[in-house]
Amino acid sequence: MSQLDLEALLDAFAGGELSRDEALARLRSRGVEDLGFARIDKDRARRRGFPEVIFGLGKSDAQVVEIFTHLAAENPNVLCTRASAAAAETLGREFSELRFDALSGTLSLHRDTRVRGEGSIAVVSAGTSDQKAAREAEICAEVMGNEVHSYRDVGVAGLHRILACIDEIRSARVIICVAGLEAALPSVVAGLVERPVIAVPTSVGYGASFGGVAALLGCLNACSAGVTTVNIDNGFGAAYAASLMIRRPS
Amino acid sequence: MSQLDLEALLDAFAGGELSRDEALARLRSRGVEDLGFARIDKDRARRRGFPEVIFGLGKSDAQVVEIFTHLAAENPNVLCTRASAAAAETLGREFSELRFDALSGTLSLHRDTRVRGEGSIAVVSAGTSDQKAAREAEICAEVMGNEVHSYRDVGVAGLHRILACIDEIRSARVIICVAGLEAALPSVVAGLVERPVIAVPTSVGYGASFGGVAALLGCLNACSAGVTTVNIDNGFGAAYAASLMIRRPS
Amino acid sequence: MSQLDLEALLDAFAGGELSRDEALARLRSRGVEDLGFARIDKDRARRRGFPEVIFGLGKSDAQVVEIFTHLAAENPNVLCTRASAAAAETLGREFSELRFDALSGTLSLHRDTRVRGEGSIAVVSAGTSDQKAAREAEICAEVMGNEVHSYRDVGVAGLHRILACIDEIRSARVIICVAGLEAALPSVVAGLVERPVIAVPTSVGYGASFGGVAALLGCLNACSAGVTTVNIDNGFGAAYAASLMIRRPS
Amino acid sequence: MSQLDLEALLDAFAGGELSRDEALARLRSRGVEDLGFARIDKDRARRRGFPEVIFGLGKSDAQVVEIFTHLAAENPNVLCTRASAAAAETLGREFSELRFDALSGTLSLHRDTRVRGEGSIAVVSAGTSDQKAAREAEICAEVMGNEVHSYRDVGVAGLHRILACIDEIRSARVIICVAGLEAALPSVVAGLVERPVIAVPTSVGYGASFGGVAALLGCLNACSAGVTTVNIDNGFGAAYAASLMIRRPS
Amino acid sequence: MSQLDLEALLDAFAGGELSRDEALARLRSRGVEDLGFARIDKDRARRRGFPEVIFGLGKSDAQVVEIFTHLAAENPNVLCTRASAAAAETLGREFSELRFDALSGTLSLHRDTRVRGEGSIAVVSAGTSDQKAAREAEICAEVMGNEVHSYRDVGVAGLHRILACIDEIRSARVIICVAGLEAALPSVVAGLVERPVIAVPTSVGYGASFGGVAALLGCLNACSAGVTTVNIDNGFGAAYAASLMIRRPS
Amino acid sequence: MSQLDLEALLDAFAGGELSRDEALARLRSRGVEDLGFARIDKDRARRRGFPEVIFGLGKSDAQVVEIFTHLAAENPNVLCTRASAAAAETLGREFSELRFDALSGTLSLHRDTRVRGEGSIAVVSAGTSDQKAAREAEICAEVMGNEVHSYRDVGVAGLHRILACIDEIRSARVIICVAGLEAALPSVVAGLVERPVIAVPTSVGYGASFGGVAALLGCLNACSAGVTTVNIDNGFGAAYAASLMIRRPS
Amino acid sequence: MSQLDLEALLDAFAGGELSRDEALARLRSRGVEDLGFARIDKDRARRRGFPEVIFGLGKSDAQVVEIFTHLAAENPNVLCTRASAAAAETLGREFSELRFDALSGTLSLHRDTRVRGEGSIAVVSAGTSDQKAAREAEICAEVMGNEVHSYRDVGVAGLHRILACIDEIRSARVIICVAGLEAALPSVVAGLVERPVIAVPTSVGYGASFGGVAALLGCLNACSAGVTTVNIDNGFGAAYAASLMIRRPS
Amino acid sequence: MSQLDLEALLDAFAGGELSRDEALARLRSRGVEDLGFARIDKDRARRRGFPEVIFGLGKSDAQVVEIFTHLAAENPNVLCTRASAAAAETLGREFSELRFDALSGTLSLHRDTRVRGEGSIAVVSAGTSDQKAAREAEICAEVMGNEVHSYRDVGVAGLHRILACIDEIRSARVIICVAGLEAALPSVVAGLVERPVIAVPTSVGYGASFGGVAALLGCLNACSAGVTTVNIDNGFGAAYAASLMIRRPS
Repeated sequence: MSQLDLEALLDAFAGGELSRDEALARLRSRGVEDLGFARIDKDRARRRGFPEVIFGLGKSDAQVVEIFTHLAAENPNVLCTRASAAAAETLGREFSELRFDALSGTLSLHRDTRVRGEGSIAVVSAGTSDQKAAREAEICAEVMGNEVHSYRDVGVAGLHRILACIDEIRSARVIICVAGLEAALPSVVAGLVERPVIAVPTSVGYGASFGGVAALLGCLNACSAGVTTVNIDNGFGAAYAASLMIRRPS
Repeated sequence: MSQLDLEALLDAFAGGELSRDEALARLRSRGVEDLGFARIDKDRARRRGFPEVIFGLGKSDAQVVEIFTHLAAENPNVLCTRASAAAAETLGREFSELRFDALSGTLSLHRDTRVRGEGSIAVVSAGTSDQKAAREAEICAEVMGNEVHSYRDVGVAGLHRILACIDEIRSARVIICVAGLEAALPSVVAGLVERPVIAVPTSVGYGASFGGVAALLGCLNACSAGVTTVNIDNGFGAAYAASLMIRRPS
Repeated sequence: MSQLDLEALLDAFAGGELSRDEALARLRSRGVEDLGFARIDKDRARRRGFPEVIFGLGKSDAQVVEIFTHLAAENPNVLCTRASAAAAETLGREFSELRFDALSGTLSLHRDTRVRGEGSIAVVSAGTSDQKAAREAEICAEVMGNEVHSYRDVGVAGLHRILACIDEIRSARVIICVAGLEAALPSVVAGLVERPVIAVPTSVGYGASFGGVAALLGCLNACSAGVTTVNIDNGFGAAYAASLMIRRPS
Repeated sequence: MSQLDLEALLDAFAGGELSRDEALARLRSRGVEDLGFARIDKDRARRRGFPEVIFGLGKSDAQVVEIFTHLAAENPNVLCTRASAAAAETLGREFSELRFDALSGTLSLHRDTRVRGEGSIAVVSAGTSDQKAAREAEICAEVMGNEVHSYRDVGVAGLHRILACIDEIRSARVIICVAGLEAALPSVVAGLVERPVIAVPTSVGYGASFGGVAALLGCLNACSAGVTTVNIDNGFGAAYAASLMIRRPS
Repeated sequence: MSQLDLEALLDAFAGGELSRDEALARLRSRGVEDLGFARIDKDRARRRGFPEVIFGLGKSDAQVVEIFTHLAAENPNVLCTRASAAAAETLGREFSELRFDALSGTLSLHRDTRVRGEGSIAVVSAGTSDQKAAREAEICAEVMGNEVHSYRDVGVAGLHRILACIDEIRSARVIICVAGLEAALPSVVAGLVERPVIAVPTSVGYGASFGGVAALLGCLNACSAGVTTVNIDNGFGAAYAASLMIRRPS
Repeated sequence: MSQLDLEALLDAFAGGELSRDEALARLRSRGVEDLGFARIDKDRARRRGFPEVIFGLGKSDAQVVEIFTHLAAENPNVLCTRASAAAAETLGREFSELRFDALSGTLSLHRDTRVRGEGSIAVVSAGTSDQKAAREAEICAEVMGNEVHSYRDVGVAGLHRILACIDEIRSARVIICVAGLEAALPSVVAGLVERPVIAVPTSVGYGASFGGVAALLGCLNACSAGVTTVNIDNGFGAAYAASLMIRRPS
Repeated sequence: MSQLDLEALLDAFAGGELSRDEALARLRSRGVEDLGFARIDKDRARRRGFPEVIFGLGKSDAQVVEIFTHLAAENPNVLCTRASAAAAETLGREFSELRFDALSGTLSLHRDTRVRGEGSIAVVSAGTSDQKAAREAEICAEVMGNEVHSYRDVGVAGLHRILACIDEIRSARVIICVAGLEAALPSVVAGLVERPVIAVPTSVGYGASFGGVAALLGCLNACSAGVTTVNIDNGFGAAYAASLMIRRPS
Repeated sequence: MSQLDLEALLDAFAGGELSRDEALARLRSRGVEDLGFARIDKDRARRRGFPEVIFGLGKSDAQVVEIFTHLAAENPNVLCTRASAAAAETLGREFSELRFDALSGTLSLHRDTRVRGEGSIAVVSAGTSDQKAAREAEICAEVMGNEVHSYRDVGVAGLHRILACIDEIRSARVIICVAGLEAALPSVVAGLVERPVIAVPTSVGYGASFGGVAALLGCLNACSAGVTTVNIDNGFGAAYAASLMIRRPS
């Protein structure tokens, strides 16, 4: 409840337009509104700049379909990560614009394609097996209203690959760096650019990669300053943070 | 070596102003220069926007003093983290503007106080014991040319403390969130703002906090989107990343 | 064997009503009885206030059915956690009152519905995916004779959700707090109430949640005093402890 | 802000006793007060039933002394855990009633000795080396207004020791069980009583005890239901939770 | 090669019964024989007192059948752990005496049933779910020529169960103690007997049992002296070690 | 309380030699005695065959001296592990036979030097740095009444060293094998002998030895059957278990 | 770009054979070429001595087939590790020389069978279950142009097995040592030879082998100098490193 | 004992030059000699090509001095790692050629300076703090008879540093790569050269570097083939393995 709203309420009460009970009821629920959040989802889109995002993991297909449909009624753009092909098929019958990326399990409606970020986001990934997390990051960043450029298979085992495109990467405003195994890529990239690097460690590897722990530790201990890290395989989280970093002031 | 530099070199060679040997020598070292880095520190400041930073940990006082003095000859602003009081004392005799924060061990020269970031950085910390990492973040961010606001002792055990200043925090462009124990603060803050949150887990706690591992996992698994994480107690890393996020395009 | 029983035994032996051999036999088994436990299950119900609970995990359906049937012959209320749908179907043919919660795998007979606890138990859970453990806690607490109130999907990512119902939660006598990911909810809730909080970390999450380890550490390191913790996903354990906390002195 | 306070405020405003600006100011700060917490410590004592507790760990002696003195001006009873002997000496000059337990580092003023809990708390500990955590639990529980009974050196290596006093232990309302090494004691005790057991794993042991991890896992996996666990060596946390469990409704 | 064999060889060579080449050949292979091992399996049975044991894990059914058949041609008693039902079926067609324990996957031929150990082995197990490892221990110990007594479902949650049979257990010469969860049983049993206790931690449990790690640490940190530990679920290893402990000197 | 004691008690009561109150008192305390343990230490020596052992770790010198003196009044042989030189000096003034091994911190009185074990114990250790744990094992085993033979510095890096003495080692009845780093020695020794091997992993090593975890895992995963393991550096535990294994039936 | 290439370029430009634009284009891409790597795979074979190797893990069969076919068009020898039988079948229709090792999932074309290494590689493995990694190492080493000798089932549980063939093993130039469980074999072998030993820990084992962690730590802590280690089950990595070690200087 | 030695022994015995007892004694000790090792240290130098190496860690200064002096009497070159300055001072009085590197604690006598390796060893290290392990590797490699070239402070945060000297590094026969933090350097270097790379992870770093675990995992998961790894900070181990790799066949 803004200063203006509060003043209006008091004036309305003082002016008799609002009964004491009505004024009490509005004030009682104020603590919540005053904090800037609300239970109605359409408000979330207005408040935070993009629609609520559904995490498909651990939800039934029916739940995913129901929440997605509900959100799609209120928002032009809707995102669901880690969704199943079955949920995609059901929703595809209703929404012709629906897009499903089978590799990453990302479901999206991207009906409002205006770009909202200042500058672009580069998604740089080390190997073929990192594409699952990289695709999630790319799609999420796009649907959130960003210009996204992808640089794939540029791992440090063949350093020339990343060097060949580093000038392009430098032109992005923020860089998402996706890598498994020892995750040396974020260190190398951050050492070459003047932009923030968000590292996404992936669970790619076997043996002592321990499901991405080696990559996670590699990212957290990056010798180049300017790297921050998200959870293992969390392409969505990186895209969300990157979006916030370049969002134009509203 | 820019396109223009290359053209100039070829023209000079074609025009006889440059011998073949001189042209060869310049081209040989080009691979390095073309990548955009150099061994001379003053170039680092020009290139990346702020001076090289000394990590005091594992360096002798003599080494710290020597490198610091060298950097201070070329740059207005110099930073050294995890320095000793002895190194500070020695350097203080030479540099009257020297500032030493004993709590965090941060040594700094802040002679060029122009602000270079767009918008401010909020440093939000949970408890008294998190001040070591918080101070490191604050000083580093300031010396790197940012406006910094601090919100201390606002841990979630008394939720009203963070709620009371959340409106101010929202006005920052990026938020650094410093917390030990279970590190619930980044989740709570990120859920209340539209800005990127950089979480700094601290080693504060005993028993099953495992030197900050509990806090680190808390940050990486934050239920609110928009949180990225740096290493345990790494206030400097958070400040560096935050600076890159709000740096004005040069 | 109580003081009175011992006196009676000695008197009966002295009075010749009990042979020396009979007296010896009774005394031989006394160590066990005197400690307050017995091998016969119906005694457990009398002694501890509710029926023995079957853990379905690692037991065959046939074993579950046999033990359940045996217990149901002696006790009005019977509980089995982590049971299969097949076991539920078989038992359902015999016990018309049988209730099976498919989500959590909890099988129960709740024929004696008297409330035995002083005050109610609140089960507060962070997200949709925490419902498996939350349901187990709710059903177990109910069948053990408690009044239970549930507060679902009140995770700290949207703080207003928990704040909106905190007054109701305060009226409970003990609070079970179920959360995965970083498990910030127990810290936040315990900071707002004057009641003991039992934290149930869940295995919800991916990557560096490590099957609930992140949540477990979050609960153990909660910055608010008054939180105790049970094993990952152990809704039953939390319900059992909560029941003991509010049990009316018999 | 209670319903009554709100009504009074509106009436005062309607009646002209309160200007619009004053009404606005009071309402603005209401969100915080409405949640039921406040920044003034004396309110914490009124609200939660006992004084704020100082954690000495990571605070300077000067800080400890200052906070302690401040709290002692407002509250009859004050607690500080993990304090130094030096802080104790300084405070001892001012407060003649000051008590310092050197083993656990617990500083306390216990000027209001009224008992506030219903029933007593039993503190049961396995070995001599567990006394540090046990002492912290005992003193904290006492200063918080509870009747406390201690049972020391009753580890399961000599089972007769715990069996010999189990009848007394049963008469407590809640049991704190302190054990290091494999921490078998909570399982054994919980199997013998009808009361909630709060397990405190200690860092006692060498080799594969891993600073209390073995004991912590032992407590979390206790085969007897009714056990909840606090952090390693966290005697204070157990005492606080136990106090909440038996607090008389105010 | 014994002292006597060496003397005989030299005498035979000196006496001309053995050519220099034959003497050389025998001496060349001596290093191996002198160490007391041989490549021929039947020798293993003679040397170590019982037949080689096949680990089925990671071997194909065909491999298991072939090795088993080979061993059965030379030895009266043959053991294979972690075998499949299919391998058992194939072998059962050839060996009418074959015994297959489906629960533990133990295949055995027990044709020489003479007892070879001095005193008996007690196999004490905590719960129903520990029977897999307990069965493996029992069968292996029997086939290795020992008298085995089993005490099942005597976990410490109901202490009377173990106390009721402790006198019988004391009469064994060595005790194998099988327990999952927090594995408190070995500590309790070892505190009550004068015999060596071999602890077998099992992978029974969920959440923070971490596949038997909690139980393993519980066994290694047992507060009662006299406990040694084998790998998680390694019933065979415990039986083998127990057999060596009570083997009659040959 | 034995069958005979019980019969005598009943007869004495029946015969009037024992009042009802006296009979009650004796029976009340019977549960404890009947389990076969007592609080008086001299009974422990009678019951378990050797005196109670003091763990010096975490006890003050004064406590160690007091308990040691108390035990020495009742028992010919007394053991204290992990003691300080100061405690040894104090006790040495009173007990001329006192022996203190500074390397391992083992304090002992060995006044009754009769051998009680059947056969000898071999203590085999890999390197110079394993001597701390090896010495503890040797002294404890000797004071407990065993014949002990030591084989030092026979690690597998020079295999000939262990092979050269394997025949002697084979003549022991049980083998204690002490090794750090990867702890390959227990596997190699167990493969060469027909005796039980108790492995003592040591904390010797650096880097990825993780304070003995590598050695502990090496022992638990020994490829030779017949190996059981004790805690890291726990020479006492190995000696105690070995003593139980070869104790002559009393 | 070599010194000669640079001179030629400048001369051609000076001589007018090369336009300024062409010279610029060649120089722009030089940074990459100058570093000695290229994007075209046939160059990799020329540069590093053997063809690029495909990791099948995490690639679809179609991807494997396409990359394999592409490589086979340019190189005589092609390797793919962790491939499926389905991919092998598809490729087998096109390449008659294709070899598929089902145990390890290694696909290979070995059309140029010239030996390129100086001296041979010994692949020494401990048990039957280690054959998966051992086979991968053997095939990879052969296809990379080496003479390979295998020594299987020579684990240290029967030390005579490794001793019997140690003289042959010594004649190799480098030794790959494959072992699971406690991985004692590399220590024992390295202590007996003057050659570098590459240890391959395998995931063979159960319980506390933790998927190969115990073996990995065993290798890293080997008490014999001269051992280096690769990732768990990484037979390919060991073969690749061994090949580099003995490659004849080109 | 070689074939020739055996023939000579038999001939001497047959010819009466050797008594039966003498022949027996020589043959008895043969098993050991036949395996190719001996207890006398001078033989180790002859056999393995360089003198035995003393590990100072965990040895007293007196022990170090005694072993060093003993070895120096027999060998021209002697090495001791992790030695103290005190031991160095004592030994320096006796050996004027003694060299002590205080940073790494490496003591050495390098009296025979002949080069024995084919080709040189490059020691490449990432940062200033990695010099401790790098120095140990350099000195050990030199004293073992190798030509060593060092490349310091070439971490990937400034990629130009490693690229600037990669051509020189390529000319080495084997490369030791020393790096802490995320240890990206071995991956980058191995991708650029055709030589085996031995990675030495260091314990440099703070927070989530976990004393070198992050670096160790980085090395084991290196995305470039051809990397093998030694223990954390184990510069000696890397030097020893490198020496074996390039040792000229004797």
